[in-house]
Order: sequence, then structure tokens, then C-alpha cells
Amino acid sequence: MPEHAAHFVIECENAPGPAVLVCEHASNDFPSPWGGLGLNDAQRQAHIAWDPGALGLARELAQRLGAPMLHGTASRLIYDLNRPPHSPAAMPERSEVHEIPGNLGLSTEERLRRTEAIYIPFHAALSDLLARRLAVGQRPVLITVHSFSRIYFGQTREVEFGILHDADDRLARAVAARDVGLETRLNEPYSVADGVTHTLARNAMPLGLASVMLEIRNDLLARSQVSMAERLAPVLQAAIEEVA
Amino acid sequence: MPEHAAHFVIECENAPGPAVLVCEHASNDFPSPWGGLGLNDAQRQAHIAWDPGALGLARELAQRLGAPMLHGTASRLIYDLNRPPHSPAAMPERSEVHEIPGNLGLSTEERLRRTEAIYIPFHAALSDLLARRLAVGQRPVLITVHSFSRIYFGQTREVEFGILHDADDRLARAVAARDVGLETRLNEPYSVADGVTHTLARNAMPLGLASVMLEIRNDLLARSQVSMAERLAPVLQAAIEEVA
Repeated sequence: MPEHAAHFVIECENAPGPAVLVCEHASNDFPSPWGGLGLNDAQRQAHIAWDPGALGLARELAQRLGAPMLHGTASRLIYDLNRPPHSPAAMPERSEVHEIPGNLGLSTEERLRRTEAIYIPFHAALSDLLARRLAVGQRPVLITVHSFSRIYFGQTREVEFGILHDADDRLARAVAARDVGLETRLNEPYSVADGVTHTLARNAMPLGLASVMLEIRNDLLARSQVSMAERLAPVLQAAIEEVA
Repeated sequence: MPEHAAHFVIECENAPGPAVLVCEHASNDFPSPWGGLGLNDAQRQAHIAWDPGALGLARELAQRLGAPMLHGTASRLIYDLNRPPHSPAAMPERSEVHEIPGNLGLSTEERLRRTEAIYIPFHAALSDLLARRLAVGQRPVLITVHSFSRIYFGQTREVEFGILHDADDRLARAVAARDVGLETRLNEPYSVADGVTHTLARNAMPLGLASVMLEIRNDLLARSQVSMAERLAPVLQAAIEEVA
């Protein structure tokens, strides 16, 4: 694969709905020239490599909301698209309890190579997609779709559905105000203080667009991404209409 | 000129200094396919079309600060790079007291065409430049260089040097704290409330980079851009070091 190959896909780019969906951690693929970073099979299947179930949910939501959906196609351990290039978490040396051998002591050349190959094109594509919609008079909202692990650092998490926001909390509060029949928390299990709202901050905030980051516990997605989408889509639709 | 031709230039892209300079309103060129928008020669020379003297000052500052400098090469009346696509000021129907015939009743297709040809590539280039510097361990600051008219809507402005900021005021206050021997004001003759800090909000804020927008009265730049650069460069250098 040439180094300039795109490590993202846009599905339904011209879908007419007001939402734009993003799934940064969709993939646990480890494409060349990086390969598996010295991880074993179990680690490459684990949540440290990706958000299991998030892509399926994002795709089902996009279909129900009539939304374009942009997703990454390389593991976040190669480059975490939801982090800027100077964040230690962009190309992490450790993730949860795991050391990432292929990320230890990266040279500036390698950091630049991954930034140029993965981070820059992804955010350029998202930014372009939003700008083109604004140019023709649409007013998109940005929704990012993530999943999180029930067990983290040995602790069990009770939260099932986390609704996270950056500085603009309009859409998050509109979603949180509605009952989805899940253990729902605002800004859990992560929040802006953990640096997890970069995609929102970079792409929605400067354009004044409402945005929200959704975190669904991955054991629920393992059961059915379709039923979770059926549960969430009407709530998202109503929340989008509320902030429009 | 093909429609995908770049309507910007990056000078000294690999200059090693900590500042990245931007001059959005550098040019009063009206390239094809747009041409002069129905304006007469005097209007195309006037401040409504560009920021007279700003490019020369930006170039002189870049040289003294060892900075890359990105500037637009088409009049802001075709597309104002410091405005998002949904802003009425991006492709304005009026500017100060002048109607812009070529911008009246633009179709969505034409708004999209200009956004894709001018706005998107410019901000992608700036965003890329900043991301690449962050990837290799630099921590750039963003400085945009503008000029303003002494007479505006028939009123004379006393301010000579305006220092404007978006939500992050660190660099602006560090510049304003230093004496440059000019009538200096913070957030005059414009401010964030006028929507003039889009370039800062879009490119510096999401990355946590310090930023400032400089506005110099254009009659002072008409006298000498070199002497203004000699006056401002040491102050900027000291302010950059203060926020580093």
C-alpha cells in the first residue's frame, strides 16, 4: 500500500440529513508499512486497538439518520485520530495495561510520517465535508461514535451510555434529556478533561456547529448493533431537531 | 487557470522559527474564472478588496522571525479566507459602502465552487503546516497580519495598531504589554464579536496554540512596511518567548 493511501473511508458522502457521523476508532487493522506494532493477536483484537462495535453502530445510525459517515481504517494504536500530533496518546507507548512495542521511542520522522499519512488526511476530509455543506446552506451537526470497555484497569464500569461534549454542550444536553433505557451519564466514562473531544474541538467548534461524542459500552454492542441503533436513532433525531 | 489551481502561496515553508504567519487578505488580484466582479478600478484598488500593505509587512516580519508565511492570492471579495462558508461576509454582497455586483444573489453552486477552490485548500494547507510542526515536537504560535483603513464609513480612526484575540488571549496580552510607540488598542478596530478571528479559531484554538491577529492602520504601512516590521518584530519575538 503506498504511503499516501487514504486510511479512512467516507460512506454515503452525499446523504442529505443534518448529521455528519464520525467513527475514529472503527478499525483494528494494522496496515503496512506499520504492521502489528509487536502486539499479539489478543491485543490486536482488544479494545486498546479499536472501539469494538462502534463502526457497526455508526453505520446503522448513519442509515437511520440519512447521514454521511467517515471512519478510520487503521488501528488507533498506529495513530489515534481523536488526538492532535503532539499528544502522547496520538501514538501511545502504553494503552491501559499494555505496552505497545512498535510505539516505543518513536523518531520525529516516524511521528511526522504517521501524522501526514493518517491524521492530516482524515481531518482534512471531515473539515471539507462540513465546509461544503455549510457552503450550500446546510447547518450540519457532528456526532462521533465510540465504544468503551466494561472492565478498565480491573474496575467494572456501571455506565452504559456516555454523552460527552466539548465547550458547546447543546447537543449533548438535548440527547441526555431523553430516556433511552440505558444507564446514561453526561461526560462519563471520559470527558473533555481526558482530551477525548479533539475531533469535536477541531471540526465543529470553529464553525459554530453543535456536536456530541457518544460512548456505548462495548458488551452491549456485542449483543446487537442494530438494536442499539434502533434505540438511539430516534433520540438523536429529536435532539438534532431541538438544537437546529 | 484551472479551477483547482491553488489560490495561496506558502513562503519559507521550512523556516525554523516558532511563529507561523498568515496574511489572508494579501491580494487584490481577481483571477479567472471570477474576474473583477463588476467593480471599477478604484474599487479593486481599495481596502474593500484587500488589506493594502499587509503582505509586505507579513513578509518582512516572517524574515525577521524566521517564520513560514501563508498568504492568499485572490481578493477577499471573491472569498474572504477569514470567514467560514456560511458567513454572509465570506462572499459579501456589500463591503463598507460598496455594492459588489458579482456577489449579488450567488447560487449555492457558485458558493460551493468558491469554497472548494479558495477556502478549503487554504485552511487545509495552514492546518497541515501546524500539524507537521507539532508532530516533530515544535510548538508553533499563529500570527495573522492585517491592515485597516483610517477612514471607515466616513469616520476617522485614531487607533494605529490593533491586537485582536479569539478565546485564547495569552499572546495578544503579551504583545499589548509592550510599547511599540503606536496608538495601540486591544480588540480594536475589530474584535471576536465581529467574526474576524476565524483563522485563529479554526487553526490555533483546537490545537491549544497561542495566537494573535495584528491590525495595522494602512496609512502607516503605505509609508514603510520595512520600518513597521523593524518596530514590531522585536516585540513579537519577546511576546512569543513569554508565552512559550
